[in-house]
Amino acid sequence: MVVNAHNDSGAVDGHVGADRRYVVGVDYGTLSGRALVVRVADGAELGTAVHEYAHGVLDDVLPGGGALPPDWALQHPDDYREVLRHAVPAAVADAGIDPAQVIGIGIDFTACTVLPTMADGTPLCELDEFRARPHAYVKLWKHHAAQPQADRINALAHKRNEPWIARYGGRISSEWEYAKGLQLLEEDPEIYARTERWIEAADWITWQLCGVETRNACTAGYKGILQDGARPSAAFLTALAPGFGDFTAKLDLAPGVPGVSPLGGYAGPLTAQAAAWTGLPEGIAVCVGNVDAHVTAPAARAIEPGQMVAIMGTSTCHVMNGERLAEVPGMCGVVRGGIVSGLWGYEAGQSGVGDIFAWFTEQAMPAYVRAEAVTRGIPVHDVLAEQAAAHPVGAHGLIALDWHSGNRSVLVDHHLSGVIIGLTLSTKPHEIYRALLEATAFGTRVIIDAFEENGVPVTELVIAGGLMKNSFLMQLYADITRRPLSLIGSSQGPALGSAIHAAVAAGAYPDVPAAAQAMGKIERAVYTPDARRAAAYDALYAEYLRLHDYFGRGANEVLHRLHAIRLAARDENGAADE
Amino acid sequence: MVVNAHNDSGAVDGHVGADRRYVVGVDYGTLSGRALVVRVADGAELGTAVHEYAHGVLDDVLPGGGALPPDWALQHPDDYREVLRHAVPAAVADAGIDPAQVIGIGIDFTACTVLPTMADGTPLCELDEFRARPHAYVKLWKHHAAQPQADRINALAHKRNEPWIARYGGRISSEWEYAKGLQLLEEDPEIYARTERWIEAADWITWQLCGVETRNACTAGYKGILQDGARPSAAFLTALAPGFGDFTAKLDLAPGVPGVSPLGGYAGPLTAQAAAWTGLPEGIAVCVGNVDAHVTAPAARAIEPGQMVAIMGTSTCHVMNGERLAEVPGMCGVVRGGIVSGLWGYEAGQSGVGDIFAWFTEQAMPAYVRAEAVTRGIPVHDVLAEQAAAHPVGAHGLIALDWHSGNRSVLVDHHLSGVIIGLTLSTKPHEIYRALLEATAFGTRVIIDAFEENGVPVTELVIAGGLMKNSFLMQLYADITRRPLSLIGSSQGPALGSAIHAAVAAGAYPDVPAAAQAMGKIERAVYTPDARRAAAYDALYAEYLRLHDYFGRGANEVLHRLHAIRLAARDENGAADE
Repeated sequence: MVVNAHNDSGAVDGHVGADRRYVVGVDYGTLSGRALVVRVADGAELGTAVHEYAHGVLDDVLPGGGALPPDWALQHPDDYREVLRHAVPAAVADAGIDPAQVIGIGIDFTACTVLPTMADGTPLCELDEFRARPHAYVKLWKHHAAQPQADRINALAHKRNEPWIARYGGRISSEWEYAKGLQLLEEDPEIYARTERWIEAADWITWQLCGVETRNACTAGYKGILQDGARPSAAFLTALAPGFGDFTAKLDLAPGVPGVSPLGGYAGPLTAQAAAWTGLPEGIAVCVGNVDAHVTAPAARAIEPGQMVAIMGTSTCHVMNGERLAEVPGMCGVVRGGIVSGLWGYEAGQSGVGDIFAWFTEQAMPAYVRAEAVTRGIPVHDVLAEQAAAHPVGAHGLIALDWHSGNRSVLVDHHLSGVIIGLTLSTKPHEIYRALLEATAFGTRVIIDAFEENGVPVTELVIAGGLMKNSFLMQLYADITRRPLSLIGSSQGPALGSAIHAAVAAGAYPDVPAAAQAMGKIERAVYTPDARRAAAYDALYAEYLRLHDYFGRGANEVLHRLHAIRLAARDENGAADE
Repeated sequence: MVVNAHNDSGAVDGHVGADRRYVVGVDYGTLSGRALVVRVADGAELGTAVHEYAHGVLDDVLPGGGALPPDWALQHPDDYREVLRHAVPAAVADAGIDPAQVIGIGIDFTACTVLPTMADGTPLCELDEFRARPHAYVKLWKHHAAQPQADRINALAHKRNEPWIARYGGRISSEWEYAKGLQLLEEDPEIYARTERWIEAADWITWQLCGVETRNACTAGYKGILQDGARPSAAFLTALAPGFGDFTAKLDLAPGVPGVSPLGGYAGPLTAQAAAWTGLPEGIAVCVGNVDAHVTAPAARAIEPGQMVAIMGTSTCHVMNGERLAEVPGMCGVVRGGIVSGLWGYEAGQSGVGDIFAWFTEQAMPAYVRAEAVTRGIPVHDVLAEQAAAHPVGAHGLIALDWHSGNRSVLVDHHLSGVIIGLTLSTKPHEIYRALLEATAFGTRVIIDAFEENGVPVTELVIAGGLMKNSFLMQLYADITRRPLSLIGSSQGPALGSAIHAAVAAGAYPDVPAAAQAMGKIERAVYTPDARRAAAYDALYAEYLRLHDYFGRGANEVLHRLHAIRLAARDENGAADE
């Protein structure tokens, strides 16, 4: 039983007493899927369950053996069905409700996580003939082996002045549908030829639920380069690679017709088979798919223009609505209806945040810090934060660049890497830790500044995700961004968001904003900037910016050269690092 | 009993059987003094003993209380006498020889380590009235609080085109006699006025031994700005600060007469009092003082032009003889007779080497590496080196700048700090460790290149000091510098060097080269460059150089600004870091 601690929607048990309708949201993450049972009337979270993917991330070998090259990351699609079979019934049981009272189900997924299927939705990797072919599997969002293809797409788009490229900050990512599709064509033409549908996992699992193929507006726009009703032209695609001109047909629902569904839309009725998997009533509403980050904005009741939602975990995704279209260099994308129908949805991201802090505590923190944490029975992050908080801004004399996992916004460059400067013989672990925390906050400020400089105001940060529990980090973000920080009132933002969308698809609310108002949860301005610290951070931010541009914008391409040297050295060695 | 494992001088017991004469070398380090009993005939090391300084380094409070500001580092001179009282008799006892057979004693010291005394050699800090006055104590080499004075000396020297400034690579150090003396004048004029002698600890302890004040050619040249028989003019000193014009009189042995003694020279007879301290015969030869690094060159029998001796410990000092005078930008100094009479002695240095590696293992290395070392019963450095050695050059994708303790050569800037770039989420501890090792080797190559570019060839590296035992590090230095590495055949290079000089002072050899030939020890070309690795390192060195110049030569003064921000933040906090 999950207690809904932060619901300030105004609904109380007395008001919802008569309304016993529920929805299920399913959040597909990188390693597991989570189901959440939510009360339609007020968003109360009543039960939840998690199911781990049996195959996890395939970045080393295929299930049947067969080594994968560096930068590959695949998944097995049946792991997603398993979540429906196990997590959904378990969540319903945990909630203690009658499944007959569930009126809808909605899902969100990582993106761009994409797979090749037959016309009937059968994944190619589930055909016996293709089980040993890496390109037949799901390419997970963090599959980064299509970088050469992405580079060529970007170069050609700029050369041809393609109108859509500016919608993606000037650069599309190697993670997205066209780059991964082009890699498929060039590296395994047979699989490419057999690919009748090239589909986001979000849309594929929705298809598995309702038997109807849909394409959601979010992934179609952000990952599938659909802008103003059109995708990249056949002429562009053919110029990119002979034989690629037909690629868009693998996305469109009918020849030349994208057929995209709005978020919160009704995809179809739950099939008998999916009802059997989930234990939910056949025929209830299945909602159009969505993306984990974007679906969180309504869950945080943060869909007004200027409310930037930052979902902070291993990485951070930023989503925000705007009333007008602006093309912001280095953002991930701007999509009409990409977050909420009728508004321009902006997306940006930081590719490394919590995973950088985890790397530090696992690989670069001495034993004595861990020993203190063990002795005191508290997490190492608390020990480090406590020590760091005892010193004024800048006392460590350090600046870090938070590129240990590359830079998603605003540089859009996965071959960058982390930097730390200012080390002395008296530098202590909590100082490096703090510098890394600050670096990620500076990275957020770069993104905010890019939006504001291009006419998209950012007035409030709304934080969701696991890192919102780190109060030292939260205060630091408020100080560095000079903005109030609000917190989502749920620890299961994406699943709650999917449930909200399911409620709309089921007709319980007229639209997503109305459902968000009733079911979403936010605590406003939990952290506010301290003027003195903010001023001190401004000086450090100026240094960060200068290093950011020096290492990230071509003045010294050393990080790219080191990346190339590293790859060449490892090839030479005939073995990847342990 | 010390076994002399590496003596290849050709002497065997049969030849030296009749010669039972011994000398004592005393090496004064930063935390302790070591005495070594050496056989005159062949340099055999027969006994040794160490005595720790009771007061250690005073960088926090004075002995009687009284806080010291940041960057201060003092010592108590009686600690030096205690070494004579304890370590010398213990070394003689360890050797099992008859003290009556000791014919001479010589010392070497850290430098510039300098103190104010009365005309009779009494340290001012030993006067009751001045015990609580920081400026009355010995200023240790690493006292860095005279940087503002050094900056002014350098600026004025360049403005006035003083001829001596080029002899110090264009910049004198805040560690040296004039900078520390100017700080004394400006911060405690009363102590300055009472300072009759401003004397290197090397010369002061020699004075304590023989009752005769001498000034050795090494410190007089490298630390006391004595060039071509002259020191900075009174006009220069007065322009620097009113009242500083008389400073040189506190150094010269007679008005206008520097009175400098050559290295290996006879300073005077051992006094009755010093004989009582040491247990050695009264009247034996006391040698002119010397500096720990410079005295090591004869100990390694490496006094030919082109043989660069690198004494590698917490920091590295490079000394090398040349036949001609060259003024190399960024070197520490060039002094006629500064290493061996008759040759130009060149000095350079790296302010952080072994202490950077120690910082890493203490402050930035995770518990699991130490656990493996403990399990296997080997040093952590061996674990790290073994893991690092398993990968090809560049596989870590990292470049570090070895400035955690500033940069002595060629930038001469103590306010620089360490940098590491190229970090990723898969970066492992042994990779950072290796990058730090490589950074110090790149630092050495910068120094070598500076000498060669200015007409001073460097044909061989001769390594002395504790780090020569790290074979992974040694091979890496050979590969990166593209030069053969020879090793001194003694683990007590400085003390052996002092003993060699004592033998000359006692008349056992006609000069230092002759004594070095008989008593010094070297293993030639123990490590030679591997062509393939050397080529791969060239690419990394090019990146190091570019970052070196970017961060070190003014393109981005961020390290200086971070230093200033750090100091200001700590002042604001009212407390130094723990």
